[in-house]
Amino acid sequence: MAAECESGNCHAWAAKDPSGTLSPYKFNRRTVQSGDISLRITHCGVCYADVIWTRNQHNDSVYPLVPGHEIAGVVTEVGSDVNGFKVGDHVCVGTYVNSCRDCENCNSFLENHCSKFVFTFNGVDTDGTVTKGGYSGHIVVHERYCYKIPDGYPLEKAAPLVCAGITVYTPMIRHNMNQPGKSLGVIGLGGLGHMAVKFGKSFGLKVTVFSTSESKREEAISLLGADNFVISSDKKQMESLKSSLHFIVDTASGNHPFDPYLSLLKVGGVMALLSFPEEIRIHPATLNLGARTLAGSVTGGTKDTQEMINFCAANKIYPDIELIKIDYINEALGRLVNRDVRYRFVIDIENSFK
Amino acid sequence: MAAECESGNCHAWAAKDPSGTLSPYKFNRRTVQSGDISLRITHCGVCYADVIWTRNQHNDSVYPLVPGHEIAGVVTEVGSDVNGFKVGDHVCVGTYVNSCRDCENCNSFLENHCSKFVFTFNGVDTDGTVTKGGYSGHIVVHERYCYKIPDGYPLEKAAPLVCAGITVYTPMIRHNMNQPGKSLGVIGLGGLGHMAVKFGKSFGLKVTVFSTSESKREEAISLLGADNFVISSDKKQMESLKSSLHFIVDTASGNHPFDPYLSLLKVGGVMALLSFPEEIRIHPATLNLGARTLAGSVTGGTKDTQEMINFCAANKIYPDIELIKIDYINEALGRLVNRDVRYRFVIDIENSFK
Repeated sequence: MAAECESGNCHAWAAKDPSGTLSPYKFNRRTVQSGDISLRITHCGVCYADVIWTRNQHNDSVYPLVPGHEIAGVVTEVGSDVNGFKVGDHVCVGTYVNSCRDCENCNSFLENHCSKFVFTFNGVDTDGTVTKGGYSGHIVVHERYCYKIPDGYPLEKAAPLVCAGITVYTPMIRHNMNQPGKSLGVIGLGGLGHMAVKFGKSFGLKVTVFSTSESKREEAISLLGADNFVISSDKKQMESLKSSLHFIVDTASGNHPFDPYLSLLKVGGVMALLSFPEEIRIHPATLNLGARTLAGSVTGGTKDTQEMINFCAANKIYPDIELIKIDYINEALGRLVNRDVRYRFVIDIENSFK
Repeated sequence: MAAECESGNCHAWAAKDPSGTLSPYKFNRRTVQSGDISLRITHCGVCYADVIWTRNQHNDSVYPLVPGHEIAGVVTEVGSDVNGFKVGDHVCVGTYVNSCRDCENCNSFLENHCSKFVFTFNGVDTDGTVTKGGYSGHIVVHERYCYKIPDGYPLEKAAPLVCAGITVYTPMIRHNMNQPGKSLGVIGLGGLGHMAVKFGKSFGLKVTVFSTSESKREEAISLLGADNFVISSDKKQMESLKSSLHFIVDTASGNHPFDPYLSLLKVGGVMALLSFPEEIRIHPATLNLGARTLAGSVTGGTKDTQEMINFCAANKIYPDIELIKIDYINEALGRLVNRDVRYRFVIDIENSFK
């Protein structure tokens, strides 16, 4: 493997071509600028985005490609203008590491919607370099895109919060799903879905999980605390739930029909779409006759992200993870493709690069 | 024509078969029950629904069919339990005349979403009779489904409020579009669209009208007070408006693409759908990447309807109408199909049945 390594100040694992197979790699991170912090990465969550870009599924991958955008670690250095962080702080970095900081969206802390938003990996930063993600020993990031992990919150559990967690939390808050006593449907029970169940229960909602897999029933109810579990292909049960839910969070990654789920919403109900099926097809009557809403969402802004982490710490919400070493990553990505993970792989970076 | 008339206490015009041609007709209205009021109809607006059901386009028309659900008139009799109305009051009746009054939706004044909701015409009432609408001399309705027309508000202008008006007002209020300084797009400039422009201006919004017809530019700007007018087939102009609008009200009756309009919304923007194209097809990224919302709607509840009428009176919002006599109705319905009306036909019932 040593022969594949290049020179640089940062150890990492990278995909070198569209096979997506990862192997050791070295490259240079920038030195800390005035607004930056440097983070010794301890953990990095494994998101489906890592599969998409290591395998060039969007035809825009630049190799070698270091994935990973669910980063947790410890501050080792801060720039001269940094106000929010000090050496030793526990910090997360999520799906983006830069934005213009001057547009309507940035000024509203919706940096995730800034047109100059820079992805944490495979993005082009303002200095022209291609960003490299958290499957690496350290990262240098402007403090605006870093989040404090409250004391006592485990770093390995914090990592998935800044992608899976915020992706679910943002639309739930935007659409006022934090109303105790109301009802929530969660479609799909993967990395996002299991967080939706946890947030839902924490908000005081009655949670029904919709899944294609009977094998998840026991865990949904016993482990995650869902109130109800429905196999979505069971037409009779789906019919019996018509117009019964206030909210739905749709985390299903594959193509699926929308009318059967939308019709489960009560009048004025909201279904938040977090995934990217090929196309949405809806009969207008399904929306109109129930005054129902379908709302898109993608990640979240910096203010909401910090709020979400604080909420998780205060309410003892922890993602369920399977901790792995970096040399298991190729097998882990294969299992992720086969949906064989409960519910998030997290790479133990600090014990992988010793 | 006299030979076609049947016996009864109520003069009307009815369609007798799916040709949809209307001609004189007589039938019996029920006598006033304890909760009812009887209304001498002075005016009735002409809605596209009248075309749909007189021509049996939904395959559920029961003939003879008396259309009309934008009714204004004067109270001539009230039942013993009526509290809200007295003889002489000016009153509207809209798209429905009954509901169960005991479900979650009725208890929230969302009677329009009650599963036992009874349409004002071609519906089956609780007594088993088929309801007959406002192309008639009088109507007997439970007071819950009647609305007071404030003093001085012209009855012929009030009639279109209880369908066209409330259909537009409900989603605008539900989705908080009454925020001065924000921007609104209105798709289509017919009976609903022209009301959306009027409400939008009254709410203090900057209004852009999207139309397929250049012929409506002058009226949109000069008559209705829109700030901007865009031909929706003009790709360059559509592109220049990307991510610029807070809200859109979609009143376009025909099939049309959704992505080009949804992409005009700013982050978090809402598009309210009021019409029934055959199918909605959307690329998920259009919703997700802008955290955009598509929301269905249909008419409104009794509380919102009264509030909307009061708002129109207080803010001098009047539908633009073309007043016709009943013997012009067949020509008027033909013109409505050809979109040749600015912006609502209203039948001068009181001067038609003399």
